[in-house]
Amino acid sequence: MLGNLKRCIVIEVHSSNRIEVSPIGVVHRQGPDEDINDRSLVSKIVIDEEYADGLPGIEDWSHLHVIFWMDRISEEKKTLLCRGNEPDMPTVGIFATRAPVRPNPIGLTLVELVRREGNVFVVKGLDALDGTPVLDVKPYPYWVKGSWIVVTKYRVPAYLRKINK
Amino acid sequence: MLGNLKRCIVIEVHSSNRIEVSPIGVVHRQGPDEDINDRSLVSKIVIDEEYADGLPGIEDWSHLHVIFWMDRISEEKKTLLCRGNEPDMPTVGIFATRAPVRPNPIGLTLVELVRREGNVFVVKGLDALDGTPVLDVKPYPYWVKGSWIVVTKYRVPAYLRKINK
Repeated sequence: MLGNLKRCIVIEVHSSNRIEVSPIGVVHRQGPDEDINDRSLVSKIVIDEEYADGLPGIEDWSHLHVIFWMDRISEEKKTLLCRGNEPDMPTVGIFATRAPVRPNPIGLTLVELVRREGNVFVVKGLDALDGTPVLDVKPYPYWVKGSWIVVTKYRVPAYLRKINK
Repeated sequence: MLGNLKRCIVIEVHSSNRIEVSPIGVVHRQGPDEDINDRSLVSKIVIDEEYADGLPGIEDWSHLHVIFWMDRISEEKKTLLCRGNEPDMPTVGIFATRAPVRPNPIGLTLVELVRREGNVFVVKGLDALDGTPVLDVKPYPYWVKGSWIVVTKYRVPAYLRKINK
């Protein structure tokens, strides 16, 4: 899909504030029929050669936050209101959900780093489709002033407390 | 800084894969001299009116992941190798760090939602500068197949184990 953008000339009026980002790599999956929500499945992140020098040391971390661009979300699918799939789920604002049909279809998933093979990460638990552009990879957890930031006490909506544990 | 992009006409050749994102809001801080790494400080995220319908329900969550664009990072500052500020820190790849001087200066911070006032979030712990464009806001934690994804067992580099607790 992104291939369409290659080597074309774009003339446009920036009527609002926009930002340009370049993917640093791409997701490779075993097959198109995989259940991306199966967190036991392994997939690969292939980092572009031009960014490979940014990788050494990442194998000292067991977990990574992967930030990706959900490029199969068309403009028509995007919405500001969303209702969950389960029965009795209310309609809420898109920013109160993780639904991909959001204004900027940015994905964020915490994965386990199985191993690094050169410029390829083998990861477990990534819920991104085959071919998804990756924008950034960050180690987990992060730290501020000598403390790891790991939040284990949190409040969630009642309608989700009923279906998750 | 982004103001420069407003209403200008851009003619460019897309020589590589790029993605355009539009900020959904902006960070407001009390003052320019605040220590953004002081997680007890409160700041505001002002969501653009056009995205305000995406907000209802977010107040049912105590914590949010904020994804923002660190727009003070110039092209010249970006790097693929980074050394920590503390003594005895090794030089590692940028993706093994949270340093902002990365190829795509995307910030990711887990904050506490203090309250929502219409299209304004009051949050605690956001380490973004005043005026920073916000790209997305997601509730924490997320869930897959009936389970909350909260990782409390992880491995980190030895050089960070010494300085963080």
